[in-house]
Amino acid sequence: MSVRTLRVALLGCGVVGTEVVRLLRQQADDLAARTGARLELAGIAVRRADRKRDDDLDPALFSTDALGLATREDVDIVVEVIGGIEPARSLVLAAMEKGKAVVTANKALLANDGATVHGAARRYGADLYYEASVGGAIPLLRPLRESLAGDHVRRVLGIVNGTTNYILTRMEETGAGFADALDEALALGYAEADPTADVDGFDAAAKAAILAQLAFHTRVTAADVHREGITDVTAASVASARAMGCSVKLLAICERSDDGRSVGVRVHPAMIPRTHPLASVREAYNAVFVEAESAGRLMLYGAGAGGAPTASAVLGDIVAVSRNRLAGTRGPDESTYADLPVHPMGNAVTRYHVSLDVADKPGVLARVAEVFARHDVSIQQVWQDGRGDDAQLVIVTHRARDSALQATVLNLRALDVVRAVASIMRVEGEEAGRP
Amino acid sequence: MSVRTLRVALLGCGVVGTEVVRLLRQQADDLAARTGARLELAGIAVRRADRKRDDDLDPALFSTDALGLATREDVDIVVEVIGGIEPARSLVLAAMEKGKAVVTANKALLANDGATVHGAARRYGADLYYEASVGGAIPLLRPLRESLAGDHVRRVLGIVNGTTNYILTRMEETGAGFADALDEALALGYAEADPTADVDGFDAAAKAAILAQLAFHTRVTAADVHREGITDVTAASVASARAMGCSVKLLAICERSDDGRSVGVRVHPAMIPRTHPLASVREAYNAVFVEAESAGRLMLYGAGAGGAPTASAVLGDIVAVSRNRLAGTRGPDESTYADLPVHPMGNAVTRYHVSLDVADKPGVLARVAEVFARHDVSIQQVWQDGRGDDAQLVIVTHRARDSALQATVLNLRALDVVRAVASIMRVEGEEAGRP
Repeated sequence: MSVRTLRVALLGCGVVGTEVVRLLRQQADDLAARTGARLELAGIAVRRADRKRDDDLDPALFSTDALGLATREDVDIVVEVIGGIEPARSLVLAAMEKGKAVVTANKALLANDGATVHGAARRYGADLYYEASVGGAIPLLRPLRESLAGDHVRRVLGIVNGTTNYILTRMEETGAGFADALDEALALGYAEADPTADVDGFDAAAKAAILAQLAFHTRVTAADVHREGITDVTAASVASARAMGCSVKLLAICERSDDGRSVGVRVHPAMIPRTHPLASVREAYNAVFVEAESAGRLMLYGAGAGGAPTASAVLGDIVAVSRNRLAGTRGPDESTYADLPVHPMGNAVTRYHVSLDVADKPGVLARVAEVFARHDVSIQQVWQDGRGDDAQLVIVTHRARDSALQATVLNLRALDVVRAVASIMRVEGEEAGRP
Repeated sequence: MSVRTLRVALLGCGVVGTEVVRLLRQQADDLAARTGARLELAGIAVRRADRKRDDDLDPALFSTDALGLATREDVDIVVEVIGGIEPARSLVLAAMEKGKAVVTANKALLANDGATVHGAARRYGADLYYEASVGGAIPLLRPLRESLAGDHVRRVLGIVNGTTNYILTRMEETGAGFADALDEALALGYAEADPTADVDGFDAAAKAAILAQLAFHTRVTAADVHREGITDVTAASVASARAMGCSVKLLAICERSDDGRSVGVRVHPAMIPRTHPLASVREAYNAVFVEAESAGRLMLYGAGAGGAPTASAVLGDIVAVSRNRLAGTRGPDESTYADLPVHPMGNAVTRYHVSLDVADKPGVLARVAEVFARHDVSIQQVWQDGRGDDAQLVIVTHRARDSALQATVLNLRALDVVRAVASIMRVEGEEAGRP
């Protein structure tokens, strides 16, 4: 049997790109056996051609003309690992127009302008694979769009940002505050010099949009995602979570409304019971927990970032599009047939942990409880932490609408017996707070 | 766009089959939107046509002529959920010969005679999907054969049998012995009246063969798998594991040898550190932990059995083969190009926890240590449990060849200071036993 050759153009050669090159070369024989085609590197688009590269590589492979490379006649597969929206989008669109299969790790592009990119894939009959955009090497998108294609996903809870999970793990383990834990993450290379994208939840929100779209077969963009970061998580909140058997995690939550007619997508810190599988996801690891009607509870866990894990996911996609190309077919298009609206955060229904600095005198609980009752927010547990001037009243609610809880908090702030609302944190998972 | 119809024949209508029928009907519109074809039930082959069925179903769908149904002109997809080798094999082969796509949950058939079934799929150009054969709804086979297709899997550690994991969880939680925990599992329906297939490791061994073949691209059958069940696991072993920070799990282990030239596949109880992600897999849940060169450590977790989860996996495969059929293509063939021999258990390299009933007198440790040294088995830790006549000497070794450990144990039994070898259990995972 004669073995065909498929030619791969790589756009971007940073941490991930370098690993992709290494794997394409090191695994060449295995890849040929698994796809039925030799995968050959056609070229590598870089910003600066004069930078020192791996000595082994033919310098003629490098080019600063990304568009020329992406659309070159002899290229079959374009791998985009530049990141960001432009010029990545233009390059990917141009490649698809020329009939190339595209493999990308670009969460920002897919979450912010997925409609354009998916639309082009459909129009030009091009393959578009993007497993590496969420959760590094963890198989997430393929299970959601293929394995669970015959099931009905109810909810996806994900720890999809390694930096914030590392910080929260350290806060839990050492009792440190956010700033100290962030410093440690910076020192160890788990956080970038400008940590905004991670700690403010932008990275997680983009990934949540991609997961929600796959889970619910409806269009979701980053702008649809309610987003709160972890900068306001205090050592006291982490300690309080611990006292009620919970861990604090930055969760990406994608869920159907109870009536199934809309979806909600939110990223925020939350307490989850330590018995929940997600609570054991520590350090920079990522995991996505899926609740589906028939499949039940699934969790997919692994390294969510890094050059090698991300490159592994890219290679898996390269193998898939290669097989498709040899078979003269392509993978499934994006699926948005369900066409469900994304409801606002106020419609989210969950549980809350509220800490109040209160005056230590009789009647306080009655006044506070009355405010919750007025907004139909039912209290599950209440206890006092500390005594005298340091006393805090901790209230854990039953499930309530977010809008009702926010109105409750506004009213609590106005009560004379409440000196301050010390913290509000959502509680996810079934058993949290039960005695 | 006119929507095509694909017709599905169901062979077997037990717990899984009933759920498949329910999902095909309940999710009909979603499945049509996701595949591009209406999926219609062409017929259901059952052993006894007169048994009472779901009132909703047209009685004309039922037939005792499985072969007739599997090969009928108007059938596109054959779903086999009968289990066991015959008649399932003949039916599946006949269906593929007639060009049907086959979806099966049959681990016994694939693990014992995969060569015949995969060979027929290749010969007749038929699709053969079997995600439901291992780990229920957990996406395992698709990640191994597709997501990790560009990576190099080093080792797969799986908890792939829910019954034994339930029993071991109860033993750990309550201190019960094997017999009592089995009784509880029977009472709760987690074990079958004849629990042999589960507790003796046959079920896990079949799944291990399937996982190993996918992970290493080489032929592995159930007969290649070294198999030990959990019937000899004692409350004392579980307590001893606990004392060293470990849990006892029945593991299916598939690994490359250190030189990469052979693979080993084994199923046996083992101690793993409680910090290992697999240790938190409790009750009847399953999980598969994968170590790959680039992807690093991945874990896929979920309900490993049951009608609905297994049916979810079957439906995912039905969607996949439907999409293939509409595109005029088929999924990847089995991949056995690596053609690596399966090495015998004696070549396995791992760590061991050995408990000895010894005489409580000076010089015992020196005599025992000399036996280990003679076989080149290096001791990592040793301690004495209890005193006087009840004293046990516990030895945890560094990594050693299984053949060397077995020879050591033979020699230990012959020592006059050793009254009995109370237990030998392998220790998996990196950190176990470290202080």
